Amino acid sequence: MSKTEQDLGARQAHHYYFKNGTMDFYVGWLLGYSQLGGLSPGAVYHCLNQVKDGDPRSWVRAFGAALAFEQAQARDAEATGALARASHHHLAATTAARAALDLCDPRDDEAARLVDAMERSFQAAMATAGHPLERWDIPFHDKHLPAYVSTRLAGATTLFVVVGGGDTYREDLWFFGGGAALARGYAVLLADLPGQGLTPHQGLHFGNATVEALAVAIRAVRARGFAGKLVLCGWSGGGLFSAKYVELFGGVDAWIASTPIEDMARLFEEAMPALLRRNPAGSFQQAVLSLAGRFNPVLDASLRKYDWQFGPGGIANAVERFREVGKVDLDRLDTPLLALVGTSEAAEGRRQARRIYEAVLPRQPRSALVEFPPASGADAHCQVNNLPLAFDHLFGWLEGLGLAPARARA
Amino acid sequence: MSKTEQDLGARQAHHYYFKNGTMDFYVGWLLGYSQLGGLSPGAVYHCLNQVKDGDPRSWVRAFGAALAFEQAQARDAEATGALARASHHHLAATTAARAALDLCDPRDDEAARLVDAMERSFQAAMATAGHPLERWDIPFHDKHLPAYVSTRLAGATTLFVVVGGGDTYREDLWFFGGGAALARGYAVLLADLPGQGLTPHQGLHFGNATVEALAVAIRAVRARGFAGKLVLCGWSGGGLFSAKYVELFGGVDAWIASTPIEDMARLFEEAMPALLRRNPAGSFQQAVLSLAGRFNPVLDASLRKYDWQFGPGGIANAVERFREVGKVDLDRLDTPLLALVGTSEAAEGRRQARRIYEAVLPRQPRSALVEFPPASGADAHCQVNNLPLAFDHLFGWLEGLGLAPARARA
Repeated sequence: MSKTEQDLGARQAHHYYFKNGTMDFYVGWLLGYSQLGGLSPGAVYHCLNQVKDGDPRSWVRAFGAALAFEQAQARDAEATGALARASHHHLAATTAARAALDLCDPRDDEAARLVDAMERSFQAAMATAGHPLERWDIPFHDKHLPAYVSTRLAGATTLFVVVGGGDTYREDLWFFGGGAALARGYAVLLADLPGQGLTPHQGLHFGNATVEALAVAIRAVRARGFAGKLVLCGWSGGGLFSAKYVELFGGVDAWIASTPIEDMARLFEEAMPALLRRNPAGSFQQAVLSLAGRFNPVLDASLRKYDWQFGPGGIANAVERFREVGKVDLDRLDTPLLALVGTSEAAEGRRQARRIYEAVLPRQPRSALVEFPPASGADAHCQVNNLPLAFDHLFGWLEGLGLAPARARA
Repeated sequence: MSKTEQDLGARQAHHYYFKNGTMDFYVGWLLGYSQLGGLSPGAVYHCLNQVKDGDPRSWVRAFGAALAFEQAQARDAEATGALARASHHHLAATTAARAALDLCDPRDDEAARLVDAMERSFQAAMATAGHPLERWDIPFHDKHLPAYVSTRLAGATTLFVVVGGGDTYREDLWFFGGGAALARGYAVLLADLPGQGLTPHQGLHFGNATVEALAVAIRAVRARGFAGKLVLCGWSGGGLFSAKYVELFGGVDAWIASTPIEDMARLFEEAMPALLRRNPAGSFQQAVLSLAGRFNPVLDASLRKYDWQFGPGGIANAVERFREVGKVDLDRLDTPLLALVGTSEAAEGRRQARRIYEAVLPRQPRSALVEFPPASGADAHCQVNNLPLAFDHLFGWLEGLGLAPARARA
């Protein structure tokens, strides 16, 4: 039961399987998805038993094989008309592909194939289950935001917008509340914003564009006939993007964030591994990547992904990019806020969440802050090891605000 | 990623967390329950991180603390009217208590307190969620069978009877298909039969009484006004008890077993650890318990429980008790059978399942045998690491037989 090794900042307290901290965080995340219809615990451990601790290639191979297995099972189930079972296999295939992507280089053909398989599997899972969700490429300047949106928008009372972070594809947003919201009768919008998913291939990167794109996406839903209330639910980096949206655009009826973020540049500086901080800015990027590659191939794979997501200048410019986005002006936040905070997350993030909550509370007394201790199982970053508990809190809170659709059950 | 140590026969192929095989099987089982609303993966690992490999007392302490935590959370949620969340905490408390019971001596006060907490938590979970299930002590001679039964029996079209095995309390039967059947509109019966749950305290033990009691329980449901079709779903030892019921009483419209068992005496002889087999029958029990206690406290705790369940003569008499029950007369089985088989289970069990399936098939061509390989995550004993996949198969099969209630969704 040894402690885990260095990860990308503090993200969880528990030890699952690997000594490598990044891999171990992914294990907990995958087990969390197993509560929501992803790969079962048995199937996850079937893969893990084939992985060498700290070796990203063995991880990608194992989950790639799981993807092929689940795809074949889904085809067999569809062939016999067993649609419910087919849907579950498609969803398991989605998470198998997603898991493999954790430690791929996103610029490789392998990653492109995995994303394609993930998207097809997810869309087949929705279709075979009859979920009212459709693909949608939302125009954004001369580019587009890959998204999923509810098919029934015109009569919907409340739109639940899931805003992801630095590690999300739009399919993840279904697990982070999108599916739970649909099941409760909400309309949903699940979009890759600049920097997320494969958008860097279009030249879209994290920064001001990410916040602007969120506004474009929400206006596009309204243009499709949606005229109801608006709920934003931001996870990880989405805690900043949703905060900036509330500050700059308003018109939000309820805002949920795990965690709400005021100053991402500072969070980034505080939360990234000491390894990053100790290098002079000049040779920063190169030093980081070569050091990581030599000592920790998993950290290396993760950093190469983040590097790509930040565009020219890469991860070395991350702090600069977030300085451009700027701090959130707390005085301009006037929306009921539910702040979800895991006690095993990095201290700076917890501090900022509390600061925002305390700033909003006097103006919006229905605001709440929920802290999840280790025993709750929801103490990790984004509550990834017990998302249903986060959902209990957030959908209960929305119901209390009168925002739950008529057909919703608490 | 070392292999696990000796367990009570072959029950799984994957390695989860502990070297101790029995503990590791329980880990997988708990993670399986986390797919169905039990303790979340995060909460399970919060406990596991406090457990010393092979030390039953540290296991009982950790899950006892989880029970207290979930009970307190449930009370808080109820106090604020958050019933959905309260229900989830009550169900998590149920599995925390259940986990602690895995390695308690069932004769201790501690076990009695845990069972009491488990029952209260489960009943509160059902009540706060509004599930139509009620407690029922079914009279059995001058004793009773602790059970749960659907509140709406008179108009129900199909009764789904979950038959447990050597490691089940009636609360487990909710996880083993009872809850999934209720959600699909079936009426359900979840009863502790002689030898199961706390029935040994009443002097009820595994043997012919177990099969007789199943018949008494089903007649009692009919006496309450149920007039529909009958489905039996047996797990582990329930694969024998349900088989004997089909043989001796008939009137079953569909029979599911994971796995169907023909000859439990032989299975017992083959599947129990070599440790048991090598001891001469005379000093068998004493030798086993003292050896186990010295070398493997977890195995010791497990064996003491089984010892108690078999009554006078204890586990040393198990083979004899099953010889009295006798082999199942395959020629008398005339009910559509769905046999569920994990490929990582003991060979003798897989052999018997196939024999029964092949015997029934010519008379009942809608019968089916589904084998779950390791990659499916459902390859362990009773599919404990992916029960939803087993449910997809079994409820789809029942629908194909025309036995699904009108409101059921596949």
